[in-house]
Amino acid sequence: MKREKLEDYVTSIPDFPEPGIIFRDITTILQDPDGFHMSVDGLLGLTADADYDGIVALEARGFIFGTPVAYAAGKSFIPIRKKGKLPRKTISAKYALEYGEAEIEIHEDAIKKGGKYIIVDDLLATGGTVEAACRLVETLGGQVVRICFVMELAGLKGREKLSGYDVRSLITYPGK
Amino acid sequence: MKREKLEDYVTSIPDFPEPGIIFRDITTILQDPDGFHMSVDGLLGLTADADYDGIVALEARGFIFGTPVAYAAGKSFIPIRKKGKLPRKTISAKYALEYGEAEIEIHEDAIKKGGKYIIVDDLLATGGTVEAACRLVETLGGQVVRICFVMELAGLKGREKLSGYDVRSLITYPGK
Repeated sequence: MKREKLEDYVTSIPDFPEPGIIFRDITTILQDPDGFHMSVDGLLGLTADADYDGIVALEARGFIFGTPVAYAAGKSFIPIRKKGKLPRKTISAKYALEYGEAEIEIHEDAIKKGGKYIIVDDLLATGGTVEAACRLVETLGGQVVRICFVMELAGLKGREKLSGYDVRSLITYPGK
Repeated sequence: MKREKLEDYVTSIPDFPEPGIIFRDITTILQDPDGFHMSVDGLLGLTADADYDGIVALEARGFIFGTPVAYAAGKSFIPIRKKGKLPRKTISAKYALEYGEAEIEIHEDAIKKGGKYIIVDDLLATGGTVEAACRLVETLGGQVVRICFVMELAGLKGREKLSGYDVRSLITYPGK
């Protein structure tokens, strides 16, 4: 049965992966045709009034939401992947993890100079990876005109890390 | 400018990752709005006459093509991921790599008993991962009614490993 709100398709898993954290699982959105449609239509709503050339998304969950939006809007799709996964010439950016750091890459020819891009991702937590993604797009001469998330954990203050960008989310949870 | 055939959007990289191998890069399909549309519309064409409940796809490139098909066809989307990435109760399957083996997982509640599923992936090479994906769907009581690829490397004989399944590809390269 079709549920009323997108939130109703999210599964909250208390104390995962550690005590005190509520894990918000998006896979139960996907495995229901109505839930999946609602999420993509919601993202299309968040992007409909924007003037842009392509959707940029991050491996792997960002791909799930970014590609249907790009397809339905008739835009290009630019994947950002973990280091070593893209076959042609890339540039890379580092971001901090809780312990250590990680690196993501984009193809050098994927962004048009002066082009306008929207980043789509499943979850805004601390904002570290998406901030690195913005740097990749901008280094190649593109402009990040909007950043759209399915869910946002407001307590982690990712919006502060992304200040200066137009950040929008379909669902905002107050906690972490 | 819109090109004539989907093949025209694929970049072939000779001697990558090793001498004698031609790497077929799908990212140049994606980063052109016409190419991306042509690929997803092609997959929708390969699946249009099938009676099925959901699209199953494998992390990470399978997500790129599987989700727009699921969205456009109004079906559910079932992700198969590398071990340790799915938050709820899973079952797993192993498959052989050139050196060693790897393991993929699916959520136990993601497949309906008696449900019909189409697997979508970017590339049919040896067929090892997709054969493991079929086992996951079937172990949970689902039926794999078709398997659709963007590209197939016929020289690697993945179809032999997938014999008994209805396998279709948008592009077939004779070599490896």
